[in-house]
Amino acid sequence: LGVRLERLARVTGGRLIGRGDIEITSAAPIASATAGQITFVANPKYRNFLETTAAAAVILPDDIVFDRIPVIRHGNPYYAFALILDELYPDDAVPAGIDAAARVSGEALVDKSAFVGAGVFIGRGSAIGAGCRIMPHVYIGRDVTIGAGGIVYPGVNILDGTIVGENVIIHSGTVIGSDGFGFAPYEGGIKKVRQVGHVEIGSNCEIGANCTIDRGALGPTRIGHHVKIDNLVQVAHNVEIGDYSIIVAQVGISGSSKLGRNVILAGQVGLTGHIEVGDGTRVGAQSGVHRNLPPSGEFLGSPAREKSKAARIEAALARLPELLRRVRKLEKLVKPEK
Amino acid sequence: LGVRLERLARVTGGRLIGRGDIEITSAAPIASATAGQITFVANPKYRNFLETTAAAAVILPDDIVFDRIPVIRHGNPYYAFALILDELYPDDAVPAGIDAAARVSGEALVDKSAFVGAGVFIGRGSAIGAGCRIMPHVYIGRDVTIGAGGIVYPGVNILDGTIVGENVIIHSGTVIGSDGFGFAPYEGGIKKVRQVGHVEIGSNCEIGANCTIDRGALGPTRIGHHVKIDNLVQVAHNVEIGDYSIIVAQVGISGSSKLGRNVILAGQVGLTGHIEVGDGTRVGAQSGVHRNLPPSGEFLGSPAREKSKAARIEAALARLPELLRRVRKLEKLVKPEK
Amino acid sequence: LGVRLERLARVTGGRLIGRGDIEITSAAPIASATAGQITFVANPKYRNFLETTAAAAVILPDDIVFDRIPVIRHGNPYYAFALILDELYPDDAVPAGIDAAARVSGEALVDKSAFVGAGVFIGRGSAIGAGCRIMPHVYIGRDVTIGAGGIVYPGVNILDGTIVGENVIIHSGTVIGSDGFGFAPYEGGIKKVRQVGHVEIGSNCEIGANCTIDRGALGPTRIGHHVKIDNLVQVAHNVEIGDYSIIVAQVGISGSSKLGRNVILAGQVGLTGHIEVGDGTRVGAQSGVHRNLPPSGEFLGSPAREKSKAARIEAALARLPELLRRVRKLEKLVKPEK
Repeated sequence: LGVRLERLARVTGGRLIGRGDIEITSAAPIASATAGQITFVANPKYRNFLETTAAAAVILPDDIVFDRIPVIRHGNPYYAFALILDELYPDDAVPAGIDAAARVSGEALVDKSAFVGAGVFIGRGSAIGAGCRIMPHVYIGRDVTIGAGGIVYPGVNILDGTIVGENVIIHSGTVIGSDGFGFAPYEGGIKKVRQVGHVEIGSNCEIGANCTIDRGALGPTRIGHHVKIDNLVQVAHNVEIGDYSIIVAQVGISGSSKLGRNVILAGQVGLTGHIEVGDGTRVGAQSGVHRNLPPSGEFLGSPAREKSKAARIEAALARLPELLRRVRKLEKLVKPEK
Repeated sequence: LGVRLERLARVTGGRLIGRGDIEITSAAPIASATAGQITFVANPKYRNFLETTAAAAVILPDDIVFDRIPVIRHGNPYYAFALILDELYPDDAVPAGIDAAARVSGEALVDKSAFVGAGVFIGRGSAIGAGCRIMPHVYIGRDVTIGAGGIVYPGVNILDGTIVGENVIIHSGTVIGSDGFGFAPYEGGIKKVRQVGHVEIGSNCEIGANCTIDRGALGPTRIGHHVKIDNLVQVAHNVEIGDYSIIVAQVGISGSSKLGRNVILAGQVGLTGHIEVGDGTRVGAQSGVHRNLPPSGEFLGSPAREKSKAARIEAALARLPELLRRVRKLEKLVKPEK
Repeated sequence: LGVRLERLARVTGGRLIGRGDIEITSAAPIASATAGQITFVANPKYRNFLETTAAAAVILPDDIVFDRIPVIRHGNPYYAFALILDELYPDDAVPAGIDAAARVSGEALVDKSAFVGAGVFIGRGSAIGAGCRIMPHVYIGRDVTIGAGGIVYPGVNILDGTIVGENVIIHSGTVIGSDGFGFAPYEGGIKKVRQVGHVEIGSNCEIGANCTIDRGALGPTRIGHHVKIDNLVQVAHNVEIGDYSIIVAQVGISGSSKLGRNVILAGQVGLTGHIEVGDGTRVGAQSGVHRNLPPSGEFLGSPAREKSKAARIEAALARLPELLRRVRKLEKLVKPEK
């Protein structure tokens, strides 16, 4: 029913202190963990829950002294906890095979170990890799490649020519390969510029729900490896996102902009087109980025400024009404006749 | 063909002044209402249309003197109008039963009075309540419960373990129960933190189109009763939204944040994670909330401030370029040698 | 395999300088174009690529002197390039007819030249025009009209009563005709106001992916002709958008607001309800519009101000912390006793 604590400790590579033969049935945050559950403390501010928790075991960093219940010591408790979740909540085994109610082109290749659910459409020239799980109601157009180990959730639409690497998770409702927003104005109208590029997504990425990732106008829109994208994110045509970057919900990235590696864009950030954000740079929530940003920086605000500068302006703003009054007073003192 | 005015008056509980035997065929705003139509005035600024309207009848509060056409007097004319719309535009009767082109697990329970449309998928362990209308192309995973009277519009995706109360309306394209955005960084990578919680939605809620409501990381993401959510709203893992709260389009609520009852978030508001918004508090459009907000307040801006303070800063901002000039002038007067 | 340059020149109406009998196989941006490809220069800053490009031909305005490779001279090179893309990348011929796995009501009318894909649902009273391509997994409710030449991408949901003009493209995941966000508060609750209007879309429009366009509360939500809407845009009930307007990604337009012709709203702009934006007015990215805007203006910021004024405030803001220090200094000089 559960998993022995000693096995969980082994999975994390951590050091077990206390009884290893107890059974762990599930996991919970420390504030609510009860009998049979494992929990963790990474943030010191949750340390005080240790005294009262009813958890069966806890993952702790070395510097928190505690031994009332069994402890797994680990340098990165949250990461260890994530590894344990995989043990406690394994994926259901999904039977391989193509559902009778799927519509798979005779000119598509589906690996024998892949699962293709009811109502799925797969067009000609497409290839679905080993162990993939293509859930019901997914649409996959022509000449699409989904690498081994992919999970495509219900209702995803992947349009012609998209190339997806290995172990990529795509959540429901997301659209990959829609036309970019390209129009040529001319006297008398607006002409659609045919979007003949495609989308390339690297390996080990996760794309949230109801996102939109447009195909390139010419050439690819390119998402690197290990990129994590939250829900409702817009990625325009010919954008490039570097490896290990993190894009939080409702961000919009305009056409041809390029993010380096390890970039973090917080929620609702907007980037204008044709700009570059350097490796490792972080942009705070709701910021608006209108120019190139250097690597390893922190930026905030709309328009985005260096974080320290943005914070100073922000603090000064709160005093602006008072400043107006002070200047008025000064004017009276200096020019009393007026 | 129509409905008698006296019956409509009765439905609202209002007082009918004038002929009740006329037939009302439809409803319209007062600016465009014509013969056979009923209309209303709630906002005094529309009062002047009363003199010229061709409407057959009008709903009015007690304090507007008018009797040229039949009047239903009601303390809350817009609410009365809403009740009358239900009479004039009843739902089409939807035949109960499961469409032959639906795929319903043998281990799912669908009430005999429910309708399940073509191309619907319902997984094992799920239960669909009395009178539900599950429209075509809906995906419902495993162990999902939809309470009686629910309407799930085409193309909705409801993932495993979601619990929905009674009389809930979910609009097209919305995703409920997608994985939360949880990752544990470690040297050498970013590890996905398995999201093993679920989503709970109370009764009498309405969820707009193309929203995303993530499952809890551990435990539920929880939406109370009578909550109204507009389109393209993002609700992250373990968020809690109190009863009667109203969330306008394109709002994003980050993980583990908690809204009290009767909270109103206007369009495009963003909330950071792990914060609380007190009962009855209102946050203005495009605001960014980075800290706890007390109950019954009004907040505005990014970062959000008390509305009155935000308004003062806003007004002062418009005078900031002028203020720079005034300070320069003062400096010349005070330190003329420079 | 390719298309002769002389034919491409003819299509654009431009003047060919150099050999017209070469074969063009594809198109590329000037920075990456290689043998067999055609490219263009519209922006002078790309002019320096001309010396080194391996392209087979280039479209240029009259004022750039260059003849190393064949040139098509055209007053609007980007527009000419768009025309050429249509020649080089023609649509695949789509066979007319209704897929056996589509569900089309016996009371719907589908033109013989239209294509209806697998898993499509079309309700009674709906009409699909000549040459339409209704891709797999599309939902079309009752009494919907799609004009001739329409392309509806996979996973689109078009709800009852929607009227779409000719040559309209609707991208995946978009929802048209969802209920508007209308509620009447009363003591003891929030009453849904039945949304009995519909959506009307003119001809030659393009609607991006995962957009939401709500039906009118009473009467239509109305999108004009030649309107281009990007991804993840929210259009609330009874909004009106004038001809040739351009709405960039993640914009939200609140209920009953009206845009004139040729309006441009940049990304992530929000408009409050019941306001008007005049013909030809442009609103910068992330702006928040809370009042009527005159025609032919440029506005920026949240709240939106005239662009020149917003720019002055923006510049002054950067100096605000310094201004605080300067005022403190003045105060010491003027009131040294303090």
